[in-house]
Amino acid sequence: MIIGAIEAGGTKFVCGIGNEHGEISDRISFPTEEPGKTTQKAADYFKDKGIEALGVGSFGPLDLDTSSATYGHVTTTPKPGWANYDLLGHLKKELNVPAGFDTDVNAAAFGEARWGAAQGLDSCLYYTVGTGIGVGVYAGGRLIHGLIHPEGGHVLVRRHPDDTFAGACPYHGDCLEGMAAGPAIAKRWGQSGDSLSEDHPAWDIEAHYLAEAITGAILLLSPKKIILGGGVMYQNQLFPLIRQKVAKNLNGYVASSALDDLDRYIVPPGLGDNAGLVGSVALGVEAAGRLRA
Amino acid sequence: MIIGAIEAGGTKFVCGIGNEHGEISDRISFPTEEPGKTTQKAADYFKDKGIEALGVGSFGPLDLDTSSATYGHVTTTPKPGWANYDLLGHLKKELNVPAGFDTDVNAAAFGEARWGAAQGLDSCLYYTVGTGIGVGVYAGGRLIHGLIHPEGGHVLVRRHPDDTFAGACPYHGDCLEGMAAGPAIAKRWGQSGDSLSEDHPAWDIEAHYLAEAITGAILLLSPKKIILGGGVMYQNQLFPLIRQKVAKNLNGYVASSALDDLDRYIVPPGLGDNAGLVGSVALGVEAAGRLRA
Repeated sequence: MIIGAIEAGGTKFVCGIGNEHGEISDRISFPTEEPGKTTQKAADYFKDKGIEALGVGSFGPLDLDTSSATYGHVTTTPKPGWANYDLLGHLKKELNVPAGFDTDVNAAAFGEARWGAAQGLDSCLYYTVGTGIGVGVYAGGRLIHGLIHPEGGHVLVRRHPDDTFAGACPYHGDCLEGMAAGPAIAKRWGQSGDSLSEDHPAWDIEAHYLAEAITGAILLLSPKKIILGGGVMYQNQLFPLIRQKVAKNLNGYVASSALDDLDRYIVPPGLGDNAGLVGSVALGVEAAGRLRA
Repeated sequence: MIIGAIEAGGTKFVCGIGNEHGEISDRISFPTEEPGKTTQKAADYFKDKGIEALGVGSFGPLDLDTSSATYGHVTTTPKPGWANYDLLGHLKKELNVPAGFDTDVNAAAFGEARWGAAQGLDSCLYYTVGTGIGVGVYAGGRLIHGLIHPEGGHVLVRRHPDDTFAGACPYHGDCLEGMAAGPAIAKRWGQSGDSLSEDHPAWDIEAHYLAEAITGAILLLSPKKIILGGGVMYQNQLFPLIRQKVAKNLNGYVASSALDDLDRYIVPPGLGDNAGLVGSVALGVEAAGRLRA
């Protein structure tokens, strides 16, 4: 099966060719420019590849309601030119194959559930912690949508007792993204996270906010795996700190043996930096299956 | 279709007879005593009723993993005699009909989605705010389970700035349940919520904590309806306060027209106090369907 996949990010587009085992045989990437030009570049890449279906994991917010007149559109983004852009429609018109479409983080959660750290499980959460924070939710064997789609990067969090930073989110100030995304770290410390030592107090504060959000998600949804990706999570020292704080927060309340072994429960992506692209392959495989069914 | 339904609470059992339209034709209720005696009383009630299937919405925590050896058991409850009790097994042995089984709050969410305030929607959250706080999660057209099941009554919440109460949860202190369940209100004010006037500052504090949790759930899951039931929610003045605070928390971030009209989005149960029992009927109807499929 030849599947086209697009990880449509706000900064760059990654396009690739994958198969029903989640293997990637080819890829390109290019900067995200104005939507017509960017989409055309993607379509041109796929045109001679013989793809049977397409999967697209995109930055948002998106309209994912298949009964909506604007299904497949990017909706209210501040990104110039992209608001109300019919991303899926333009791609389908050019490529004329069945297509799956979801948020970049839902795609990554799906990829991890198919072929990554949550393989074989019917639920997982995928957090990306980078220039923003996004959360993909896979539960009951499907990706979760609702009014729109998960926007769990903006959940409210209790403050770290030593933290006086006001927060960097233009909507909420000190929500999770406002306190813990890359730009918040840089603003709080006056230098980028990359340049801070492993034992800098920044990481205890960072782990605090991520643990607050993760604890809330465990209590609300009871997911079978929590996967943390994105640039900030290259700071490997965060994992043990986060696990420690989540254990302290839960305090034994949720009785599941999985939570006795957080080293295996809160983990980096099994697919590494490919989670989004491979997840988009999974969306494409699903779309191909829907066609045959 | 004749469906047996049990709302198995920690204080009382409600048993009833319902049909595929969610209508209840008969019911009894009795105190929850030791498990053998209580379960037998329920089974005796149904024995001459000709039920085709049974639905049970129970207090928890529960084992809901159908592949588990202890599926259908109440698990770690401190309630004397009930820990590790095979509730579903005992009922099935006595009644020998297909049975659906879930938490009381998941059952209520399901009932509301079938025949109540979320009728026709594929997602909703059901909160009960009473002696404890529980949350049922219906998403993507199904009830959500995971490691165990939603325990969203214990999510972490930011403090109300005027509140110095330490919190009443034995596990987490000042989690949602520890700050906002009936016993927390009584402990904070030295008198039960029922005896406080409608304009008492208690209700602003109460609304704050519920709004914190609801905001987090909207951001993480984007549910199509939020339903608030339970004894504390008889305080109708809470609804406008909660809606106001949720709107302020979200600050327009989640772009959905449903959130422009919170009077229709954050609502009391359409099924009133019957949500749990009628939801258990829905579980029974589903179990009967599975048998025929």
